[in-house]
Amino acid sequence: MIIDIHGHYTTAPKALEDWRHRQIAGLKDPAVAPRVAELVISDDALRESIENNQLKKMKERGIDLTIFSPRASFMAHHIGDFNTSATWAAICNELCFRVSQLFPDHFAGAAMLPQSPGVDPATCIPELEKCVTEYGFVGVNLNPDPSGGHWTSPPLTDRYWYPLYEKLVKWDIPAMIHVSTSCNSCFHTTGAHYINADTTAVMQLIQGDLFSDFPQLKFVIPHGGGAAPYHWGRYRGLAQEMKKPLLSEHLLQNVYFDTCVYHQPGIDLLTQVIPTENILFASEMIGAVRGIDPETGYFFDDTRRYIEAADLTEDERRMIYEGNARRVYARLDKSLSAMGK
Amino acid sequence: MIIDIHGHYTTAPKALEDWRHRQIAGLKDPAVAPRVAELVISDDALRESIENNQLKKMKERGIDLTIFSPRASFMAHHIGDFNTSATWAAICNELCFRVSQLFPDHFAGAAMLPQSPGVDPATCIPELEKCVTEYGFVGVNLNPDPSGGHWTSPPLTDRYWYPLYEKLVKWDIPAMIHVSTSCNSCFHTTGAHYINADTTAVMQLIQGDLFSDFPQLKFVIPHGGGAAPYHWGRYRGLAQEMKKPLLSEHLLQNVYFDTCVYHQPGIDLLTQVIPTENILFASEMIGAVRGIDPETGYFFDDTRRYIEAADLTEDERRMIYEGNARRVYARLDKSLSAMGK
Repeated sequence: MIIDIHGHYTTAPKALEDWRHRQIAGLKDPAVAPRVAELVISDDALRESIENNQLKKMKERGIDLTIFSPRASFMAHHIGDFNTSATWAAICNELCFRVSQLFPDHFAGAAMLPQSPGVDPATCIPELEKCVTEYGFVGVNLNPDPSGGHWTSPPLTDRYWYPLYEKLVKWDIPAMIHVSTSCNSCFHTTGAHYINADTTAVMQLIQGDLFSDFPQLKFVIPHGGGAAPYHWGRYRGLAQEMKKPLLSEHLLQNVYFDTCVYHQPGIDLLTQVIPTENILFASEMIGAVRGIDPETGYFFDDTRRYIEAADLTEDERRMIYEGNARRVYARLDKSLSAMGK
Repeated sequence: MIIDIHGHYTTAPKALEDWRHRQIAGLKDPAVAPRVAELVISDDALRESIENNQLKKMKERGIDLTIFSPRASFMAHHIGDFNTSATWAAICNELCFRVSQLFPDHFAGAAMLPQSPGVDPATCIPELEKCVTEYGFVGVNLNPDPSGGHWTSPPLTDRYWYPLYEKLVKWDIPAMIHVSTSCNSCFHTTGAHYINADTTAVMQLIQGDLFSDFPQLKFVIPHGGGAAPYHWGRYRGLAQEMKKPLLSEHLLQNVYFDTCVYHQPGIDLLTQVIPTENILFASEMIGAVRGIDPETGYFFDDTRRYIEAADLTEDERRMIYEGNARRVYARLDKSLSAMGK
């Protein structure tokens, strides 16, 4: 089977966005703040938003299952305070849960967290616990910069984040390190902030020794690892100067890269430089780059084509498509096994 | 001949660093602030610092000439105010000028600017003018984030920067977009901030239309263009969604990438994805990554080896080594021609 580990609910019914706009307006004028109960989205509306979008493309591309989380750019943790984020995260996670219930063969949930700049990450644990234990979610997106491009939180290796990591290890949940919208005009959200965050996270992990404290912790760096594989020599060299172990040991026992790289040469480099066991198939389809590549005639985000064309054995392709995902997302593997898959 | 367009004076005599430490101490306690005249570095000390370092390696690697600017991580524009930066930039530029006078066959100067967060970039023009007209410098480093990792300046496409661009065009000087030390603990200086800045700059230029206003302006994006070539499909796709022209037209008439990518697969991708005429040979030697790659037995920053091993014709290699540099650094070409080279 083919598992896409990086999908967001970018096509949710417009009522969701409308509700969020009212929530944001309510920050200035509490009189217009909406109640949660005012957001009503029917199962039919959810079905339609998926069947005509993600599921349609998954079938066209031969993708069986997507790990599905709330829209990354809409997390916007910088807006409001913890309560704002808590309400918004609960709504968004519930929608992904409902999608996973409506299409249990095709979608498994991953949580967004109710992060807020300057607020203790431990406050996110109850929402995460609900997503894991009640919703059956198999992953979580962790935003290393809830400020949205001002980078005011400590590095991922700081003890600040440890209470969350303890739970991730306890529940065997990998974290995808994924920022949200940039509110810094220097950083285009999907063209700079996303990629910079990936690169930044890799370097933080090289500088630190996080996985000595949490040998079971697993991080997925999206968008093909930002700039890291392209500059792998730089990172190997920097680690060496810092007297760290080889990256194969220091990083790659715990860190995985997805395949959201939207052209063949990028995927070729990724699969050449990074060990196959650290690469997870993903497309982030109907996401940052939705058009057709005039150079190929196919969608930029149809990453399966690049994997098919890459210089890989069938065994390696199977690892990238399924085996690695089932190893990293252990709860997904369990539920798939329970379904006889 | 082989021109390395990206070298910094990372090996300056220690007196320089000592003076800077006193200058920084003087910001708190003006009584300890040093006078400029207190910094005395002899020609012999300069010669020694170059002959045993950059020039030695240039000879070993067959590099004829380096475009040489003050140490990037020492620019630290976030420290002090405009006057702090002005004094410091003048000192550092003068040292590079003296190196270019001592070794006219091997070094051509590029300026650092006396940038300071929140200060009008036009204040940098007098220092730049001196470097170009008196020192014969052929390039300049422009820091898109003088705050050192807080990104408080407007994007490079903002009119804020235009007074400087007017002079760059007037003097036919390309700008290398190069940040300095990060004072944000999230960003490792050479492992995250440098690479992020490159990626950020490329995306700012894609979002904007700067080169419509300045068709003659030339930017060099160092470190192989950050993440941009690896994610070239993403950038082509984002430009397309923004209804921009093809990147070959929108970006590559004015933007060049250097070859500071420290492993073979990265250089292979760069030379495959980016047109040869947009690639400039560089190593930033004795810079961010000074060790020997255990996988090859050669220095990580010995980028000439990667160019030699890349799938390029001899004509293409000549363009990367010399032709493109002489086209982009027009003042260098003039002075080389005047020397019969």
